[in-house]
Amino acid sequence: MRVQGFTAAATAAGIKYANRADLGLIFSRVPAAAAGVFTTNRVKAAPVLLDRERMRAGRAQAILVNSGNANACTGEAGMRAAQACSTLTAQTLGIDEQLVQVASTGVIGQPLPLQPFEKAVPELVNNLGADRLCEVARAMMTTDLVEKTVSTQVSIKGVPVTLAAMAKGSGMIRPDMATMLCFILSDAKITAPVLSRLLHRAVDESFNTITVDGDTSTNDTAMVLANGLAGNPCIDEHNPEGLQLFGEALTGLCRELALRIVADGEGATRLVHVRVTGARTKTEARSAAQTIAESPLVKTAFFGKDANWGRIIAALGRSDCGFRQDEVSIAFDDVLLVERGMGLGAAAEARATAVLGQKEYTVTVGLAEGTCEAEVHTCDFSFDYVRINADYRS
Amino acid sequence: MRVQGFTAAATAAGIKYANRADLGLIFSRVPAAAAGVFTTNRVKAAPVLLDRERMRAGRAQAILVNSGNANACTGEAGMRAAQACSTLTAQTLGIDEQLVQVASTGVIGQPLPLQPFEKAVPELVNNLGADRLCEVARAMMTTDLVEKTVSTQVSIKGVPVTLAAMAKGSGMIRPDMATMLCFILSDAKITAPVLSRLLHRAVDESFNTITVDGDTSTNDTAMVLANGLAGNPCIDEHNPEGLQLFGEALTGLCRELALRIVADGEGATRLVHVRVTGARTKTEARSAAQTIAESPLVKTAFFGKDANWGRIIAALGRSDCGFRQDEVSIAFDDVLLVERGMGLGAAAEARATAVLGQKEYTVTVGLAEGTCEAEVHTCDFSFDYVRINADYRS
Repeated sequence: MRVQGFTAAATAAGIKYANRADLGLIFSRVPAAAAGVFTTNRVKAAPVLLDRERMRAGRAQAILVNSGNANACTGEAGMRAAQACSTLTAQTLGIDEQLVQVASTGVIGQPLPLQPFEKAVPELVNNLGADRLCEVARAMMTTDLVEKTVSTQVSIKGVPVTLAAMAKGSGMIRPDMATMLCFILSDAKITAPVLSRLLHRAVDESFNTITVDGDTSTNDTAMVLANGLAGNPCIDEHNPEGLQLFGEALTGLCRELALRIVADGEGATRLVHVRVTGARTKTEARSAAQTIAESPLVKTAFFGKDANWGRIIAALGRSDCGFRQDEVSIAFDDVLLVERGMGLGAAAEARATAVLGQKEYTVTVGLAEGTCEAEVHTCDFSFDYVRINADYRS
Repeated sequence: MRVQGFTAAATAAGIKYANRADLGLIFSRVPAAAAGVFTTNRVKAAPVLLDRERMRAGRAQAILVNSGNANACTGEAGMRAAQACSTLTAQTLGIDEQLVQVASTGVIGQPLPLQPFEKAVPELVNNLGADRLCEVARAMMTTDLVEKTVSTQVSIKGVPVTLAAMAKGSGMIRPDMATMLCFILSDAKITAPVLSRLLHRAVDESFNTITVDGDTSTNDTAMVLANGLAGNPCIDEHNPEGLQLFGEALTGLCRELALRIVADGEGATRLVHVRVTGARTKTEARSAAQTIAESPLVKTAFFGKDANWGRIIAALGRSDCGFRQDEVSIAFDDVLLVERGMGLGAAAEARATAVLGQKEYTVTVGLAEGTCEAEVHTCDFSFDYVRINADYRS
């Protein structure tokens, strides 16, 4: 995974654990147009507050990201620490400090130690390489089991443009927005306001449609940097085709990463797409899909490979979605299990149970009230979710 | 546990499992004033639809309750089955069918078999006894580990009045209302409208303040029957002292049962009171307490005995409650762990961890925004919650 003009490096700085990569740096040779979407949680980590402010200018050149410590709920000292990390990075790289973004993920409420950064940042700058983006993706993992990177190319009026993206996230995941960090890099020439609009749409159609446990975090950040080195005709309102192609590519990358986050959800053994169709409004459809996808009883039934549609219809019934009980249908992939609000019997259930044995499947809930639909992607709720989260800090 | 004029019986009718009590009958020698509160879930089980309709008259004389089958999502056939059970009960008891209430709990979406009732109801009527209320409490258990009964007496202008109550509930528990059945019996003389008003208030201050997993059911029912045999001066608007005493006793019983439901929550090893103080409004305080009490990450930390206040503040931050991050305090019992939004360090955390070793404790979140507060009672989220719910139907 490479994008022209971008280099990266990662190292084991010892922020919390010894002997694991926990600090990464991404650098663009030239300042890039930039946009970000940040957590909607009322409690915001220091780096989020700093980045959000700087992102107003629509320009960035470097991202420093650490795992092992969220630098959240750390007060004035936390703000000073975020500031110090960015100053150190800017000075070492020889760039304007306003062009540095910082991101942290890990435990909340611990002071961020500065010493590891003082030693590691110069080392990172020395080791920057064009083929090291994946190392940053690994360094920012916490309870993730797999690193998550994806890239694509689009042709803007004959000029190839590359997009590459990396994300971390596994627990504390739900819409608005998924708890995660995501960095998207591109060599596209594009204006910052357009980039921001496309990023918001991409996040809404990707990270905002997934849930692991309904919890959101203090550090959620999705960020895109586009340095313009591809030399394409600028992507803006005067280039609608480019706008569409780049927008679709951006959304596609985000969707792919979002699904990988759910598939790598803490303790997950199944990736389940919950689709609600026939709702009166999009908002109602989303509420229904979200409530089903977050229900602990539904998710433990997924884990138990139990085609327990009663729990699905009970979750639906407490959502903010209107429907008539005797018009509800439920299918697991193409196996219809419930029609007009009633189960279709043992044979249908046996076939549905077979679907539940798959690693990935779709639950479709039909309401026959209107034409709106929504999809939320979730995982099952296993012993390992409990084990991971009962043990995480110790 | 006895209440004058009430008799009861239970039996193993074989509705789903062999050799366990699964059917109970409660009977008042004379018709009683009655009131009920039913599920707010859009999907309502057949017995709920039947009971709600009959309860409008404010009178009842018998309750037939089964476990093993919820008779929910069973369509027309389900309504006919609920009807048939009530007809059979009325005929065998020789009372007006409109005075019979039926309640079901168990798996959703399975037809309710009538055969077990045809054999068992006459047997129940034959075996009615004044000392058998606890047998009914046992017969309606599903994943409950302990039966839940409680009783009290109040003096209404010198006349002793008894209240006795039983409840079942363990999973699929959250406010509006807790997923459960609760039957309260009294020999008080009281009017039905007054009874209904007091019951609604009692439910709001008890079952609507607990959560196990945030899921609600299709069968929630709380019901009170008061047969007047105590001969007290009637409890109504002209008897404010009686109104207050009886109301407080009713709320007290419901609160006690509500706490027992949480303590017996599926897989629960801890009973945790989440208290939010200093909110601007009661609604905001409730939203905050509820969001914290339902967060899977908070609840797994309770299970892991981890004083992970970062998860508490993150859950608070996604609730509908306004606050300033740097004014938040968090205490476990009397151990202050967070002040002005920041952790108080390792010593405080060690003392908080000791509190987490207790079977029961209170988490107090202070907001310093106003004077409103709310409390929600919850349990931890353990391996056994997953085990119970991944296996429940098989």
